Amino acid sequence: MRRLPTTFLLAVVFLLPSAALAGAVEQWGTFELTLKGPVDGNPFTEVELAATFTQGTQSVHAAGFYDGEGVYRVRFMPPTVGEWAYRTASNRKELDAQTGTLIADKPTAGNYGPVRVRNTYHFAHADGTPHASVGTTCYAWTHQPEKLEEQTLATLKAGPFNKIRMCVFPKWYAFNRSEPPRYPFAGTPPNRWDFTRFDPAFFRHLEHRVGQLRDLGIEADLILLHPYDEGHWGFDRMPAAGDDRYLRYVLARLAAYRNVWWSLANEFDFMKQKTDADWERILKVVHEADPYRHLLSIHNGTRLFNQTDPRLTHASIQNGSAVADFGRAGLYRDVYRKPIVFDEAKYEGDFGQRWGNLSAEEMVHRFWQGTIAGTYVGHGETYRRPDEVVWWSRGGTLHGDSPKRIAFLRNVLAEGPADGFDPIDKWQDDRTAGKAGEHYLVYFGKERPTAWVPDLPGKQKSLTLTAEVLDTWNMTTTPVAGTITLKPKDNYRLTADPPTPIPLPGTPYLAVRLRAVAPKK
Amino acid sequence: MRRLPTTFLLAVVFLLPSAALAGAVEQWGTFELTLKGPVDGNPFTEVELAATFTQGTQSVHAAGFYDGEGVYRVRFMPPTVGEWAYRTASNRKELDAQTGTLIADKPTAGNYGPVRVRNTYHFAHADGTPHASVGTTCYAWTHQPEKLEEQTLATLKAGPFNKIRMCVFPKWYAFNRSEPPRYPFAGTPPNRWDFTRFDPAFFRHLEHRVGQLRDLGIEADLILLHPYDEGHWGFDRMPAAGDDRYLRYVLARLAAYRNVWWSLANEFDFMKQKTDADWERILKVVHEADPYRHLLSIHNGTRLFNQTDPRLTHASIQNGSAVADFGRAGLYRDVYRKPIVFDEAKYEGDFGQRWGNLSAEEMVHRFWQGTIAGTYVGHGETYRRPDEVVWWSRGGTLHGDSPKRIAFLRNVLAEGPADGFDPIDKWQDDRTAGKAGEHYLVYFGKERPTAWVPDLPGKQKSLTLTAEVLDTWNMTTTPVAGTITLKPKDNYRLTADPPTPIPLPGTPYLAVRLRAVAPKK
Repeated sequence: MRRLPTTFLLAVVFLLPSAALAGAVEQWGTFELTLKGPVDGNPFTEVELAATFTQGTQSVHAAGFYDGEGVYRVRFMPPTVGEWAYRTASNRKELDAQTGTLIADKPTAGNYGPVRVRNTYHFAHADGTPHASVGTTCYAWTHQPEKLEEQTLATLKAGPFNKIRMCVFPKWYAFNRSEPPRYPFAGTPPNRWDFTRFDPAFFRHLEHRVGQLRDLGIEADLILLHPYDEGHWGFDRMPAAGDDRYLRYVLARLAAYRNVWWSLANEFDFMKQKTDADWERILKVVHEADPYRHLLSIHNGTRLFNQTDPRLTHASIQNGSAVADFGRAGLYRDVYRKPIVFDEAKYEGDFGQRWGNLSAEEMVHRFWQGTIAGTYVGHGETYRRPDEVVWWSRGGTLHGDSPKRIAFLRNVLAEGPADGFDPIDKWQDDRTAGKAGEHYLVYFGKERPTAWVPDLPGKQKSLTLTAEVLDTWNMTTTPVAGTITLKPKDNYRLTADPPTPIPLPGTPYLAVRLRAVAPKK
Repeated sequence: MRRLPTTFLLAVVFLLPSAALAGAVEQWGTFELTLKGPVDGNPFTEVELAATFTQGTQSVHAAGFYDGEGVYRVRFMPPTVGEWAYRTASNRKELDAQTGTLIADKPTAGNYGPVRVRNTYHFAHADGTPHASVGTTCYAWTHQPEKLEEQTLATLKAGPFNKIRMCVFPKWYAFNRSEPPRYPFAGTPPNRWDFTRFDPAFFRHLEHRVGQLRDLGIEADLILLHPYDEGHWGFDRMPAAGDDRYLRYVLARLAAYRNVWWSLANEFDFMKQKTDADWERILKVVHEADPYRHLLSIHNGTRLFNQTDPRLTHASIQNGSAVADFGRAGLYRDVYRKPIVFDEAKYEGDFGQRWGNLSAEEMVHRFWQGTIAGTYVGHGETYRRPDEVVWWSRGGTLHGDSPKRIAFLRNVLAEGPADGFDPIDKWQDDRTAGKAGEHYLVYFGKERPTAWVPDLPGKQKSLTLTAEVLDTWNMTTTPVAGTITLKPKDNYRLTADPPTPIPLPGTPYLAVRLRAVAPKK
């Protein structure tokens, strides 16, 4: 935090005698107002606390929360730089009508703000920096021993991923049947909980990890509810009031972290205790409790949620088959008209279950299928380990061969159109994406071509491009000498004139990238 | 119509002096109440007329319409057999409070009632008879010379289709730029119309044709609005009040025909004069004006309508690519959870435009792709003709090679599960559909297999089936001698034990049909 000059500090206190100057924070950073309050009764349910942060005509209403031992906090993520004033509201006199100001400084290096939807099907940070989502999944990584969690962070730091799917609650499932170090509620494991009393230590730990992810430039796609409990702890079957209280508590604590995304559930339809009406209520609670409109989604098992709901910012879809071959994934773009993220496309691994035994080649292929369709794909890894530490659930280290190829793809995405990769000729050409006239990526999937005569969708009179051959598996980029000029072939396509083929190595998983010599006017 | 005994007729008149006994009609037939009324002013806009038909606790509210020359009519499709009483309501005394009764007899042969959704993704008539939709398209067939229209009917009678997409309004488009014999409104062509005055002769002609389709067992998928006018007549850009009046008039006249389906538009998104709010209003008007809840859909150009709206009974989709290869069409089932009908999958023909130059093989292949995905596909034909009579628009005769193969498929559908063909193992096996344990259809598409060892998704301990090889192009069904027993191969699939291959002819477009010797218990 930037320190304010003492003279200014004094001036503020002098001019606004009722205000406590709270300090400074950077834009999209997390400001925290700490107050002492009552400890009697049940502060989690009996004490109401919120604050309104105001700058000019804009204001943000942030819920506060009880952090134990008489400490109450209200967190705030300033959406703009400059001075913000706040005022608390509470049903307890000692927490009510507290006022003050803070200064939001310019964001420091690596802080691009929260991720938003841009260009209908894509993402960008609030400052405009494109965000091509390249996610992974470690459902229960924050419920592990300290050393393992630190190892996971080190792996993430070295890896290609800019998003991680992770559960707030611990997981009770194959390869995960152990008690975690912390629990979200007061009570006794496995299943005697007081759902009206949270354990702040659990959440402080979670926040610590989310903050570390933020500092690594990784989005935390927080899975708020999940079925991998099977009633063991019963966090999957709390009464509605329990769910709502929990959701509001999580949001009060974490909404001011710029790198959080809300995932209402993993495999929502596998939570058999919940009805469609429950999910509607849960969506409403989360949507209304978030003053920042973080990305918000819900992930399916076999039954898709109605992703047309405008409160869902993007469609988080499990369906590996949709990115297994050409012409599939893009269908979801048409029906939802929002970013499509295949948050589960099966896992690279050697599990007996068919959802957990993709080859690395297939995992990488699915990332490319998603890319060429104008969608995004998430990674996961399920190799059996003697210690049962499987990345998909506990984190640790990566053992597969896909991550470095995914890093190669991430560079291709970063060098791609700022608006994202879109199909150039939807429903007609399912292997060409990019931006018409400027940037083309043609993916050949499992074919093994030995040559390709450039041939692209379009109606331009002429197009001059440079080309590179990308071997997506061997991670090589080979420029083609000179430039290629394409001329109309028919009403729909352009082809190289003269029709000189680009030699290709006859291996699978090839792509050709073509970029305009001078951008289209 | 059945004649009532005279004594009964007298008795009714005696007991209910205010009632006029209207006669008899069959269930799901069209009863018509005819009344004389005012001719002054504009009867289309100034006279309100409706009738409520009542039987016990159920009632149907049917709008009436002015049919010209002082004649007013109210039509009614009895949803159940037995006596129905009616009472009119009007803002004109001579049309108001008219009462009477009618008898709905049992339906006669070929009358199965209107088509409804059944089993989420499929259709059946009201009496339970399955309806596997096999449609075609002749957009402007009712706007042609008498002789051509009769020829179209003769072609339909001999063909495989049980549904036809057809526009209420005439069409002004390539191969269709001629003035039709009749216009829906009073006025002077091409574009001086009084949208407040209908021409009853136009609608009587349309009804006549819809009635003839009904008698052929063909559903009339009536396209209420379309963009192929380009302002020539201006029926594509009426003011909202004009659209609404027109829609209500069409529904008042035609809702009592059991074989009508409402298609709000063809390529709705190509009607650039209309906004999303217009479509919402149009959907509401049509939905509310239909007392029978006929099938209701809207067809897209390149932008899909939000087909999740529960008032839309099925998703009418244009996207040829979705049925061009495996694993695509079924994605729409998941997102919409209603029947999927590819009402435009491109056309068999030789047009220069790519939407109109499918080979017959490709058209038939798309029907099979749709089938194997648990969806339905529509046919269309666009061969250039010296006389410009192209089936797709004007009707006439069929010149393509797909219809007889589609007839072959229609038989396969008819012999299929009464509940329809569903994927047996969604997202895992995209070439096997049917009903688990009972009926399996495995389609090989463009592969040219010479043998196939039966291998099906399932967890049964044992399954004994008979098999037939279907050559979908050559229209042959070849039984495989004996029976085949399948045993578990892994957790997900069964395979033939012993693994005896079924010989296949090494040609494309093959399928194998397997049926349980004794249905699964």
